[in-house]
Amino acid sequence: MGWGDLGAFGEPSKETPNLDQMASEGMLFLDFYTANPLCSPSRAALMTGRLPIRNGFYTTNAHARNAYTPQDIVGGIPDSELLLPELLKKAGYINKIIGKWHLGHRPQFHPLKHGFDEWFGSPNCHFGPFDNRALPNIPVYRDWEMIGRYYEDFKIDLKTGEANLTQIYLQEALDFISKQQASQQPFFLYWAIDATHAPVYASKHFLGTSQRGLYGDAVREIDDSVGKILKHLKKLGISENTFVFFTSDNGAALISAPKQGGSNGPFLCGKQTTFEGGMREPAIAWWPGHIPAGGVSHQLGNLMDLFTTSLSLAGLQPPSDRQIDGIDLLPAILQGKLIDRPIFYYRGDEMMAVRVGLYKAHYWTWSNSWEEYSKGINFCPGQNVSGVTTHTQEEHTTLPLLFHLGRDPGEKYPLSFASDEYQRVMQQISFIVQQHKATMVPGVPQLNVCDKAVMNWSPPGCEKLGKCLTPPKSDPKKCFWPH
Amino acid sequence: MGWGDLGAFGEPSKETPNLDQMASEGMLFLDFYTANPLCSPSRAALMTGRLPIRNGFYTTNAHARNAYTPQDIVGGIPDSELLLPELLKKAGYINKIIGKWHLGHRPQFHPLKHGFDEWFGSPNCHFGPFDNRALPNIPVYRDWEMIGRYYEDFKIDLKTGEANLTQIYLQEALDFISKQQASQQPFFLYWAIDATHAPVYASKHFLGTSQRGLYGDAVREIDDSVGKILKHLKKLGISENTFVFFTSDNGAALISAPKQGGSNGPFLCGKQTTFEGGMREPAIAWWPGHIPAGGVSHQLGNLMDLFTTSLSLAGLQPPSDRQIDGIDLLPAILQGKLIDRPIFYYRGDEMMAVRVGLYKAHYWTWSNSWEEYSKGINFCPGQNVSGVTTHTQEEHTTLPLLFHLGRDPGEKYPLSFASDEYQRVMQQISFIVQQHKATMVPGVPQLNVCDKAVMNWSPPGCEKLGKCLTPPKSDPKKCFWPH
Repeated sequence: MGWGDLGAFGEPSKETPNLDQMASEGMLFLDFYTANPLCSPSRAALMTGRLPIRNGFYTTNAHARNAYTPQDIVGGIPDSELLLPELLKKAGYINKIIGKWHLGHRPQFHPLKHGFDEWFGSPNCHFGPFDNRALPNIPVYRDWEMIGRYYEDFKIDLKTGEANLTQIYLQEALDFISKQQASQQPFFLYWAIDATHAPVYASKHFLGTSQRGLYGDAVREIDDSVGKILKHLKKLGISENTFVFFTSDNGAALISAPKQGGSNGPFLCGKQTTFEGGMREPAIAWWPGHIPAGGVSHQLGNLMDLFTTSLSLAGLQPPSDRQIDGIDLLPAILQGKLIDRPIFYYRGDEMMAVRVGLYKAHYWTWSNSWEEYSKGINFCPGQNVSGVTTHTQEEHTTLPLLFHLGRDPGEKYPLSFASDEYQRVMQQISFIVQQHKATMVPGVPQLNVCDKAVMNWSPPGCEKLGKCLTPPKSDPKKCFWPH
Repeated sequence: MGWGDLGAFGEPSKETPNLDQMASEGMLFLDFYTANPLCSPSRAALMTGRLPIRNGFYTTNAHARNAYTPQDIVGGIPDSELLLPELLKKAGYINKIIGKWHLGHRPQFHPLKHGFDEWFGSPNCHFGPFDNRALPNIPVYRDWEMIGRYYEDFKIDLKTGEANLTQIYLQEALDFISKQQASQQPFFLYWAIDATHAPVYASKHFLGTSQRGLYGDAVREIDDSVGKILKHLKKLGISENTFVFFTSDNGAALISAPKQGGSNGPFLCGKQTTFEGGMREPAIAWWPGHIPAGGVSHQLGNLMDLFTTSLSLAGLQPPSDRQIDGIDLLPAILQGKLIDRPIFYYRGDEMMAVRVGLYKAHYWTWSNSWEEYSKGINFCPGQNVSGVTTHTQEEHTTLPLLFHLGRDPGEKYPLSFASDEYQRVMQQISFIVQQHKATMVPGVPQLNVCDKAVMNWSPPGCEKLGKCLTPPKSDPKKCFWPH
């Protein structure tokens, strides 16, 4: 989802009454970022409170490349990382993930080995349908074992766009919440639904109901589902005891537009890029009786902050034996404080940009390569800012491109290098970047090696279902990351 | 102002609490348009309920050119046009214009000759400062006579951006409302402030208070002023008896960005163009006790509708001896009805585009000429849609470019000419355009002739002030309209 996809954030068709209501009962974050312009690294950062460059969710196969966890990825979340649910266990929390895990699909990376008590969902994106020969269909797990595969047992009709997966995920969420409330146990629910990722789908009830086409139908179904979850919390009488945060793992994928792509509002480009459209996210905090209703925050926030903030809510301290990038947002949320902190925009192994206050400095610019662009892959459709949305990787490390995101949210007008403003601001930013780089200890890169033999051929539980497939011979290779 | 300039419309810094509050107490229009991408023709349309092509506010000097009323314009609002205040007089209304008139500055075009009872403001834009030799400074009128000139008697500091004009206009509004309330007379107030037009200014109290720079300071001052006007209506106990509508006369002028230009949100290009950024406007209706609070309307609305709607509120019928383009919005505002009607996008003498439902067909596309563009004049900075934001006037009358504004609000993806959708929709639109063109009777163009002798050399009242200047010899010429 993109920053501009919700009514409360200015989407022109205003079709998200439940999320808008959530914002009016809670707090809207206008300057909230994901940790990476792509799914897997973002989610690894959310779970660990650490930048992907630290937790290993990046690649060194080529410079500044986005990488994720397709079926043939060999790596995944390292055992050395401490995940949010592992830590929450110490405070007696029961943890469930519903939806896409995306931190590795091989047995050692299973979410129940990393702190979750329950899982309903898939390890990878719902791409397909596959033929189960060159590529297996993606399995859907309940806890330790698979219970079927996408397209086979969990229908997704790519022609009509119909699939009732969001409804299934919603029911799972409602049931889990009811169960925890009945047993009076504190819980952490990571509701990581697949929608609105392409191929976009919605259930029959929502198909054709949006002005925005199938993508809008999917957004409406998410909006409706969030409304039902919040209503459920109220009905169970635990809304004042439950902290809820809504956000996304990357900007809207404009390559999928207009049929399956969302909106990044006034921001530049989309998913895969380190421009604002790729990383600034819709974000809403909700906790009736605690968060002042209708609040609007300009706190610079990041997905990784949810790690630290959640620990704080549970009365826990973040680990002290490693660098944690997420900050505790509670002072911003509950007392309206503004905490000074930078936002780092990474693409793979490279720090592309940094935001300090209202200023953003680009040390590298790249949309995608001419080669990919000439195939029709465009991360900035209709947008072209000379020298900024470049199709070659442009280094600006000695003289970064500087933008004022207040006067120029669309990153269209770099400040003059000769201006006093540039000199003054870059002095401050350079110091922060220097500090960041000097203390950076990159983790072992997890997204370098791919092997068709490790794909989801025979996930645990496949025997009972007669759904085991024979893997090809192992042939590990460097993964190819074009972007 | 642009569609994206208010918090309620998704401006990322959310600095318009009063206008957002007005929306939450009233009704937000998401699909509201101006009648023209430029100031004078828009205002002529607002006052007459008629398209500029009918009321004469266009030029035939060249094809599809934007024209307005600079100081040397010879034309103005024709006597044959019936203006809203002229008609409201029949129902006993006292009418006042505060701010920019822009419908001609020569004596026969004076607002008090066209139905207004009072005027405080200027006939033209606040450009300057001029030397009073080649060009006179723009006069400020109180009613029939000038009381000073911009930059001389009404300070505008272009270096600091300081001017207290909006405060003066605010006080005029509050005083007028008090006076009418005291005398129990119904009133029509046309609060046509100059801000946020370039050169942008704000009063000292607001300078430097916005994340968005000087433009944002000006927006904040307008927001604050609207808040004070609404509060005043409440305090006087007449809020339930006063219909208030907030909107703008064209999209944000992106040529002035980032220092003096606003935001058109997710829409394409800005002022001067017939893309959505040039003509879709922020719009809020407010009438406590009548308009359901927090309403959101997808009614296709137009500035011209305020003419017909205002007459309806006063119990009057629109003139029946001429074509009126504005419709009565009250069924949409009070009963939530959706009235089927097209929106026509004109640039000078040419119908460039038409919107029917969610579809928009471009019959002509043009941003500006290569010649102007090469001088650095860019109406679509950072935006470039191949074959759409063209720098030559491109005719598509036999095969219009068709966009779905729900799936594609940014006008980036023309529908395939071969698609069933294109065929079906264009059949419907063609019929509407045919009807429109067949019954069109253009008015006598008022914006063709310019003459330096007609400038504001010696406005009425100049003698008393010793501010009369000697005009040069009359030398009428065709006005040059580059855009």
